[in-house]
Amino acid sequence: MQSSPLAPAAFPGLEDVRGVTLATHVAEIKYRGREDLMLAVLEPGTVAAGVYTRSMTAGAPVLVCRSHLDNDGPRALIVSSGNSNAFTGRTGMQHCQMICQSIADAIKCSPGQVFVASTGVIGELLPIAKITGSVPDLVRNLSNSTWLQAASAILTTDTFPKGATARVDIGGTEIVINGFAKGSGMIAPDMATMLAFCFTDANLPRDILQRLLEEANRETFNAITVDSDTSTSDTLMLFATGKASNPAPDSLDDEILVRFRAALKSLMLDLAQQVVRDGEGATKLIKVTVTGAENDEAAKIIARSVANSPLVKTAIAGEDANWGRIVMAVGKAGQKADRDRLEISMGGICITSDGEVVDGYDEDQVTRHLKQQEIIIDVDVGIANGKFTMWTCDLTHGYITINADYRS
Amino acid sequence: MQSSPLAPAAFPGLEDVRGVTLATHVAEIKYRGREDLMLAVLEPGTVAAGVYTRSMTAGAPVLVCRSHLDNDGPRALIVSSGNSNAFTGRTGMQHCQMICQSIADAIKCSPGQVFVASTGVIGELLPIAKITGSVPDLVRNLSNSTWLQAASAILTTDTFPKGATARVDIGGTEIVINGFAKGSGMIAPDMATMLAFCFTDANLPRDILQRLLEEANRETFNAITVDSDTSTSDTLMLFATGKASNPAPDSLDDEILVRFRAALKSLMLDLAQQVVRDGEGATKLIKVTVTGAENDEAAKIIARSVANSPLVKTAIAGEDANWGRIVMAVGKAGQKADRDRLEISMGGICITSDGEVVDGYDEDQVTRHLKQQEIIIDVDVGIANGKFTMWTCDLTHGYITINADYRS
Repeated sequence: MQSSPLAPAAFPGLEDVRGVTLATHVAEIKYRGREDLMLAVLEPGTVAAGVYTRSMTAGAPVLVCRSHLDNDGPRALIVSSGNSNAFTGRTGMQHCQMICQSIADAIKCSPGQVFVASTGVIGELLPIAKITGSVPDLVRNLSNSTWLQAASAILTTDTFPKGATARVDIGGTEIVINGFAKGSGMIAPDMATMLAFCFTDANLPRDILQRLLEEANRETFNAITVDSDTSTSDTLMLFATGKASNPAPDSLDDEILVRFRAALKSLMLDLAQQVVRDGEGATKLIKVTVTGAENDEAAKIIARSVANSPLVKTAIAGEDANWGRIVMAVGKAGQKADRDRLEISMGGICITSDGEVVDGYDEDQVTRHLKQQEIIIDVDVGIANGKFTMWTCDLTHGYITINADYRS
Repeated sequence: MQSSPLAPAAFPGLEDVRGVTLATHVAEIKYRGREDLMLAVLEPGTVAAGVYTRSMTAGAPVLVCRSHLDNDGPRALIVSSGNSNAFTGRTGMQHCQMICQSIADAIKCSPGQVFVASTGVIGELLPIAKITGSVPDLVRNLSNSTWLQAASAILTTDTFPKGATARVDIGGTEIVINGFAKGSGMIAPDMATMLAFCFTDANLPRDILQRLLEEANRETFNAITVDSDTSTSDTLMLFATGKASNPAPDSLDDEILVRFRAALKSLMLDLAQQVVRDGEGATKLIKVTVTGAENDEAAKIIARSVANSPLVKTAIAGEDANWGRIVMAVGKAGQKADRDRLEISMGGICITSDGEVVDGYDEDQVTRHLKQQEIIIDVDVGIANGKFTMWTCDLTHGYITINADYRS
């Protein structure tokens, strides 16, 4: 499949993260002749943080990750693509346990130190022998795989691999953060969306790592939507190996964390935006910022209503300055909005203020903006100071083509 | 434009409703050479009931209708199509007043006895002179127009006129109910959806009429969704002229109302389903029934989550038995569901029970059902006795084609 027109020019250069080794493998779980298994082995001393789907029908791997998050000393993460092992009942749970056990046997740890994630079709049993049978090869190949291979092995309908990297210091010690993610349908912002894994050599206490991840998640993976559908498998994890031996922060608010915190958020935003850029059928990246709401939560609900509106998204696909649909989407959000003070801009061009079209509004200017790949929508609802920014993509024939014929 | 493949074979035969006269007119508000103005004049003694959009950015006509609903003796309803007069600020309100005044002058009543509705593009001023200038002709033509013409004059992107009729008795006196409606995008179930007008010659107190309408609305217009977008103009009204002179009911629960109540609900369900059948790009009518929820409201939220899911709707467009997407949509609804007791059927064929695919599940049977025009999805979430049924349509290339190029 051709790459999304919104894909970055190239996969970034990701250097090693001390304490992390990677392997990939062709297990042919669903796809033929493509690497579809990824193993990351973490040296002793690593701590893990995670955020998972809020779906009431979460898949077996999510349940396993959640329970393993409380254990000490994570040693491995294994990700398979093509089959999500979701809605697979007791057998699905047993399959997860078999996978964790086979990794544990191979690298000499306990199954509770292994994290597992799967992505793909819902409701079919994993071809478990293909996975457990691949473990010896995977382990033999450790450190022979690149980050690009790892990022590629977790993809499903994605059209390009998604990676990001950052270097930053904590208390004077340089540390590295690498991350990769996959989309690209069933993406909605009700939680850590899809699969995303970040690795750092920073030395950080587990509780601080967890809170840093949750904090960054709120304005990154939780601020994107492709199609309003929330996956049963959404998983976001951050592993910190501690190999950088930086001075440990005293608390979440320790000064030495300022740059790390910013770098982590920026890296996660980059990955989250790449997921939207690979939204099924996407031809435009859309940034929706709502200001003037009753509070930030209200702003988020309004921004999401605009970002999820099929009518707004199809208008942008059609490069049609149909801002009336934005008015509609603000209205249906059910949050306080002052119709008579509503301000809407697209591409920085003010279209309405005080509840009416501005004098001398020039639609041609907005239409020119809509021909770009990155669309900016700003809405001020005139109530108070709540604000939130959300990213989405347009809704095109491509989305229908991909999803009306996904399984067949 | 070609009629939806789901359109009924013909517009039903609607007879007169005593006390109601109709007129239609070509005002060329937006469409060329097509009737786009509809006037219904109601004899003195009529009472009105109404339900309107919950949008925070409701259009001027909605605000006017809401305020006129408290007045005694409604005398007229005027509906224009092509421009919704929504988000048109103070001028939009003035335009409504001018329309009401011109009708009031022509038929000798007060402007507060006139209801007005408009549908079409948001954010553009009405060509008000075309409307007020048409009033003399409209009034001259009263009772020269058929119900089919009236139902046609209120359409926008609809592909067929939508009407329904019923005859029923109240306390031994035969009465008639006629109704017509329009869709067909920006349809979501958060309120009386789109424009729908019903007329009866029944003699009913205003408060009972209002409660009958609200009650019927819950499981009809509020139980449909095309694209999850809620219009700024949604309006549902029911006028009762009293000309049948049936015995008046004592209360909402009066025995003599049983048949009327059932007939009204059935007529409104018919109209609501016609709106879905004309959903933009629709090729399948989908009935989603959720049972076993914590309560009826929870069932409705789950049913709506399934009915609005783009992934479910595209799977059905593709005639793909991808029931995993139903699992996903149940999960994301956020309501209690027992993953290990979840039962999903399509076309009456049980696919999953106890959280796993049933033994001997035959996908071909479901695929055959999906080739039909009317698709049945049943979900039992295994918690308690809450239930709700929702109607929607599939999501196809046609929806994208219509909406990515609506204004141009």
